[in-house]
Amino acid sequence: MQLVEYGAPLRLVELPVPEIGRHDALVRIKACGVCHTDLHLQEGSILRGRPPITLGHEMAGEVAEIGEEADWLKQGMRVLVNYHYNCGRCHNCRVGLEDECTELTSGGFDVDGGYAEYAKAPAKNLLPLPDEVSYEEASVLACGGGTVYHAMKANPISLGETVVIYGFGGLGTIALQVARLAGATTLVIDISDEKLAQAQKLGADHVLNASKLDVVKEAKALTRGEGPSKVFDLVSAAVTLETSLQMLHKHGRLIVIGALNKPFQVNPLHLLSNRLQIHGQGGCPSYELKELIKLVKEGKIRSIISRSYPLEEANQALEDLRRGLILGRAVLKP
Amino acid sequence: MQLVEYGAPLRLVELPVPEIGRHDALVRIKACGVCHTDLHLQEGSILRGRPPITLGHEMAGEVAEIGEEADWLKQGMRVLVNYHYNCGRCHNCRVGLEDECTELTSGGFDVDGGYAEYAKAPAKNLLPLPDEVSYEEASVLACGGGTVYHAMKANPISLGETVVIYGFGGLGTIALQVARLAGATTLVIDISDEKLAQAQKLGADHVLNASKLDVVKEAKALTRGEGPSKVFDLVSAAVTLETSLQMLHKHGRLIVIGALNKPFQVNPLHLLSNRLQIHGQGGCPSYELKELIKLVKEGKIRSIISRSYPLEEANQALEDLRRGLILGRAVLKP
Amino acid sequence: MQLVEYGAPLRLVELPVPEIGRHDALVRIKACGVCHTDLHLQEGSILRGRPPITLGHEMAGEVAEIGEEADWLKQGMRVLVNYHYNCGRCHNCRVGLEDECTELTSGGFDVDGGYAEYAKAPAKNLLPLPDEVSYEEASVLACGGGTVYHAMKANPISLGETVVIYGFGGLGTIALQVARLAGATTLVIDISDEKLAQAQKLGADHVLNASKLDVVKEAKALTRGEGPSKVFDLVSAAVTLETSLQMLHKHGRLIVIGALNKPFQVNPLHLLSNRLQIHGQGGCPSYELKELIKLVKEGKIRSIISRSYPLEEANQALEDLRRGLILGRAVLKP
Amino acid sequence: MQLVEYGAPLRLVELPVPEIGRHDALVRIKACGVCHTDLHLQEGSILRGRPPITLGHEMAGEVAEIGEEADWLKQGMRVLVNYHYNCGRCHNCRVGLEDECTELTSGGFDVDGGYAEYAKAPAKNLLPLPDEVSYEEASVLACGGGTVYHAMKANPISLGETVVIYGFGGLGTIALQVARLAGATTLVIDISDEKLAQAQKLGADHVLNASKLDVVKEAKALTRGEGPSKVFDLVSAAVTLETSLQMLHKHGRLIVIGALNKPFQVNPLHLLSNRLQIHGQGGCPSYELKELIKLVKEGKIRSIISRSYPLEEANQALEDLRRGLILGRAVLKP
Repeated sequence: MQLVEYGAPLRLVELPVPEIGRHDALVRIKACGVCHTDLHLQEGSILRGRPPITLGHEMAGEVAEIGEEADWLKQGMRVLVNYHYNCGRCHNCRVGLEDECTELTSGGFDVDGGYAEYAKAPAKNLLPLPDEVSYEEASVLACGGGTVYHAMKANPISLGETVVIYGFGGLGTIALQVARLAGATTLVIDISDEKLAQAQKLGADHVLNASKLDVVKEAKALTRGEGPSKVFDLVSAAVTLETSLQMLHKHGRLIVIGALNKPFQVNPLHLLSNRLQIHGQGGCPSYELKELIKLVKEGKIRSIISRSYPLEEANQALEDLRRGLILGRAVLKP
Repeated sequence: MQLVEYGAPLRLVELPVPEIGRHDALVRIKACGVCHTDLHLQEGSILRGRPPITLGHEMAGEVAEIGEEADWLKQGMRVLVNYHYNCGRCHNCRVGLEDECTELTSGGFDVDGGYAEYAKAPAKNLLPLPDEVSYEEASVLACGGGTVYHAMKANPISLGETVVIYGFGGLGTIALQVARLAGATTLVIDISDEKLAQAQKLGADHVLNASKLDVVKEAKALTRGEGPSKVFDLVSAAVTLETSLQMLHKHGRLIVIGALNKPFQVNPLHLLSNRLQIHGQGGCPSYELKELIKLVKEGKIRSIISRSYPLEEANQALEDLRRGLILGRAVLKP
Repeated sequence: MQLVEYGAPLRLVELPVPEIGRHDALVRIKACGVCHTDLHLQEGSILRGRPPITLGHEMAGEVAEIGEEADWLKQGMRVLVNYHYNCGRCHNCRVGLEDECTELTSGGFDVDGGYAEYAKAPAKNLLPLPDEVSYEEASVLACGGGTVYHAMKANPISLGETVVIYGFGGLGTIALQVARLAGATTLVIDISDEKLAQAQKLGADHVLNASKLDVVKEAKALTRGEGPSKVFDLVSAAVTLETSLQMLHKHGRLIVIGALNKPFQVNPLHLLSNRLQIHGQGGCPSYELKELIKLVKEGKIRSIISRSYPLEEANQALEDLRRGLILGRAVLKP
Repeated sequence: MQLVEYGAPLRLVELPVPEIGRHDALVRIKACGVCHTDLHLQEGSILRGRPPITLGHEMAGEVAEIGEEADWLKQGMRVLVNYHYNCGRCHNCRVGLEDECTELTSGGFDVDGGYAEYAKAPAKNLLPLPDEVSYEEASVLACGGGTVYHAMKANPISLGETVVIYGFGGLGTIALQVARLAGATTLVIDISDEKLAQAQKLGADHVLNASKLDVVKEAKALTRGEGPSKVFDLVSAAVTLETSLQMLHKHGRLIVIGALNKPFQVNPLHLLSNRLQIHGQGGCPSYELKELIKLVKEGKIRSIISRSYPLEEANQALEDLRRGLILGRAVLKP
C-alpha cells in the first residue's frame, strides 16, 4: 500500500520483493501498526521520504532472507523491527544514544516501511520476539510503546513520586502502565470522561478532566500543595505545556513527547525561580525495546489492540483513526 | 541607606542596631556588593519586601553579636552572609536543595540587608572567611559568584566539553573562570567587542560578537558542525534563549540564569527531535558557597571589583551601575 | 526496660519522665520494634552508649510534650521516631545526606530509646503517622523498613532489571516488596526452604536455596548467562558477599546492607575486569521514611508483624528472637 | 618482534603483511608504547593469546590498506589504534559501554599487536590523529592515558573536590594532569621522594610519602579531618587499597585501577557505617580517547615520553622498563 501522492488514498501496488544488502535482512510482515503520524505523512503535514513510498513503521514479522554479515539471524525467526535505522558510527551511536543518531533514517518515513508483504531492514534493527508475544501486540511497541518507555527510562520515576500523564490516547495507555510498574502515584489528565474512565480501570490513582476543572489547582491539592514532580505531556499543545509548567513542584520536570510543530511560551523568571526543567524526548534504543518486549512477555505491560484490518484495507484503517474510532491501536495484517 | 519609596533615591537614615533572636547573629558590615537587581528593586520592577527597607544582599563583615543557639560562632569572626535565608525544615531543605526552599526569605529583598553598618542574619547562614579573602572580594560571591557556580555544579561540565557563556557582564567573568577550571572549552558570546576582548584576556577559547555574526552558524563551525553541548544564558532575553536552542547539539542543554520576566518561544517538535533540555537555575546553597570561597582563597577564581564607594554614596554607585560605568562589580563600604 | 549490664537480662526500672529541651518532644511510646541489633547491644558485641541505657530504636507513639521551638507539633499527634538523631549542621546534613551525618547520635544506641513508656527525641525527627498505619506497623519501618527502602532509593532499580535479594529475614520481606514495586524481576536467595516458600508467596519471580544449589551458576542461567545487575546483601557474611561478586553482570553492583563486623575478600583484577561496584549502605533520611509511610498507608508495602509482647516481657521477646522463633518482626507494647 | 615462548626474549621474525577483512584496515606502525603489562605477558603471569604472538597494544601509525566496508578511511591517514576490539553488537556495546563489551578481543593481547611494521585492526577502532600530536605522544594514550582518563570520566571529579592519586608511575603523570584540569585539589601518594618531587613539578597540591608517614592521618589533616572524597588507586596492592578505605570521607569512593591479581580485605561494617563505594575501572571507549587526543592537541594534557628505541631493540626496552630505568613511558619505532 503505497503513498503515491500527498493527500490521496494509499494505492495497492504490486512490487518486486526488495533486494537486501550484506548487513540487511528481509522481513515477511505479519502485522504493522497504524500510527497517527501516518496520517500526517499521508496529508503531507510532515514531509520526509518522497512519494511513492510505502508507509508503516510499526513492523513485526518473520525473517525471510538474511544478509551475509547477519549470520546470527535464522530463517523464520519471529522479530520486531526497530524502525530507527541508526548509523552505528556517529558519536551518539557510540555513546549509547542510538535513538539520537545524527544520521538517522526511519523505516516508513524515509525509506519503505511495513504496509506491505515484505520489508527490508538493517539486520541489527531486528529484535527477537518470544512466542508469548503476538505479532499484533509486538508491532505497536515499535513506536507507541517504545516512545513512552524510553521517555520514562530517560527520566526515571522514583518510588512513590506523583507523575502526571497528560493525554490518554494510545501512548497514554502504555505510559500509565509503565508509570505504575515503576511505583509512581499516577494522575491522568484528559478532556474526555470516557478516556478517563478507561484510565481508572487501568489503575490510575487520580484522574482530572481539563475541560471541566482548574487542573493546576487540583493537581496541587492532590500533592499537599506542592504539585507533581514530573509531567509527561503526550499532547504538547501550547495549553497543555503551559499548564504543566504552572503545576510542577519546585525542581520539577516537564517531559515533552507529543510531536507538535507549534510553539509554546516559557517565562525565564518562572523557570529559574522554580528551578524547572523541560526535556524533549522521543525514539527508543533497541536495548530498551528488548526490555519492553520482555515486560510484555511477562504480562507486566500489555498492548491494547482495538482492531485488525487486512492490508488492502489500509485506507479504511487510516480513515477510522482519523475519525477517532480507534481506542488503543489499529493493526494491518498482510 | 534605605529604600523609602519606589523610584526615589535611597535615603540615609539613622536606625537602632537590630535586635537578634536566639538563632541569629549580628554582622558589622565591611563590604556590600551592588547588584543589578538592586536597581530593579529600587525602580519597583521587582516587588519584594515593602519600603522602607534596607537593600543590599552581598554582605561580608564581622560577627558582632551572637544568638544563644549559635555558640559555634565567635565574636569578630570574618564571615560572608548567604542571603538566601532558607527555613531548614521543608522537604527541599531536608534533601539538600536549600536554595530551593519553599519558605525562602532573602536578605536585602524581603528583610533588611547590607547597605548599613549592621545587619541581622540567621546564624546558620554565616560562612567563615579565611584571611586571604578580602571583604570586598567575598561580598560579590554571595550573589554574582554563587549563582553561576551553583549553575555549573548543578549542570556539571565534562572534561573537554564545549560550553557557551552567553553574556559577559559581572556574572560572565566568574562563569568563564569556573568553566575553564572545570576543563571546558569555552565560547563567549556578547554584543560588545570591549567585553569580548576582556573575555579573551581571561582565557576564553573562542569569542563571538552576536551583533555582527550569525552565532548559530559560527558555533556549529567551531564544533565540527555539531554545536555546543551546553549554553549558560546569563541574559535570558527571548533572542538569546531562542538562538541558544538553535545552536545546541543533539541532547544539549540550555541553562537559564538571567532573571528576565519576559517570555520566549519553544517549538515542541524541535525540542524532542533534538532531545534538548532547558533548565532554570538560580541561588546557591551554603555548602557550595564554601567551596567557592575556598577556590578564591587558593587563587583559582578571582572576584573582579572595579570600584569601592563609601556607604553614603550608595546612590552614586547605583547611578554608575545604571549608566554602565561599572566593569565587574561595585562595592559599598560603611 | 534497661540494659544495666552487658550479657544480663534487661531490668524493669521505674524512672522519671525525661525532661525535654527547646528543640525536643516527649513521645508516649505505643509500640517499639525488637531488632537483631538489640541482641548485639545486649550481648556487648556492639558497644555504643554505656549501660545503664534503655534499648529500643523502632519507636512509634503519640506526642506528649512539646519543646518551645517545635511549635508545628501538636499534643496527641501520632508519630514515628526517626532514631538517627542527625546534627542538622554538618556538611552531610546540609547536602541532604542526613543519614550520613558526621555527628550522628542514635536513640536506643547512644541515648535512651523506646523500651519504655516515654522517650525524648529531637522534634525534627518525629514523622506524622496517618490513621491508616497502626503503631505496630509503623514502628518496624524506623529501622528494618527504612534501611532497605533507602538502600533501594540510593541504588535505584531500573524497570525490568533483575535484582537479587540475598537473605530473607525481616528486612528481606520489605526488600522484596520494594523491589517488586519498582518493577524489578526478583531473585531471592536463602538457605531455608520455608523462608523461600514465603518469598514465593510474596511474589518473588525466582528463589534459590544456597545450601543446595550452585547459586552463581543458577543466577547466570536465569539471566541469559549474564548475571543479575544488582545484589542487595542483607546477610553480609564473607560467603554471601564473595558469591555475590561472582554472580554479578559486567558493570553490576553489590549493595552491602547486613551489619557484620567480619572481613571478606575482593580481587582487584576481577573487580576491574568486570567494572564491578560495591556500595556500603545503611540508615534512612526522614524524607524517605515519609515516603515509606505513605506507601504503607496506600497498601503498596506492608509491614509483617508476627507477634506483640507487653513491655515487661522484653526479655522474652529478645529470647524468642535469639531462638529464631520470630517470622517477620516482634513488637513491644508498653 | 614476536613472543615465541613465555619467559624468553622476543624474537625478530620476518612475517608476511597481514591480510585484512572487509571491516579492517592495515596500519603501518610508526610508534608503539611499551607497557608494564607487556612484561607480564612475556613472563606468562598474564595468560592471553597463545605464543607465537606479536605484543604491543599502544599503536599509532598511518593507514596503509582499507577494507571494503571502511570507506571513510583514507590512505596515509594518521591514526591511533584503540586496541580494545569490541564486538559492537552485545548489550554493553549498544548502551555505550564498549569498553565493557562481553566479547572483547585485545590487540597485542589476544591477537597480533604493534611490535611490528604493520598491524591489522578493525577499521572502527582507528581514531584520526591531528598533525599537532606526534605518533610517540599518541601511542601511549591508547592504554596508559585512556585508562585513567576513562576512570576519571566514569567517576567525575567535582570542582574543588580533594582527590588522591595513589602511585605516581606512568599512569600517575596523566592522572594528575586530568584531575587538575577538572578542577580538583590533588594529593599524590607514593613511596619514592623522586617521583613525588616530579608530582610537585607537575602541580600536585599535596604529596605524601607512604613509606615515611601515616598517610591516613595526614590525608585527614589536609581535609579538615574529613578525608578525601575519592581515591584513584593505580597500584592496587592490598596495603594501598586497605589504606585508601581508611582515609576516605563518609560517602567517599575508591576507584581500583591497578590490575593486580591478589585479594584485599574489606570490612562490611566499616563499609556501610561510612557509606563507602568501591569501583573497579579499566579500558577506555573510543569516544573518550578522541576527547583525550583533542586535549593533547590543545596542549592541556601532555604525554611524557622518556625514550624511543628502534623496533629491533624491543628486548632492551622491556629490560630497561623491568629495571625501573624508564620515567614516564618508552616507545618503539619500527
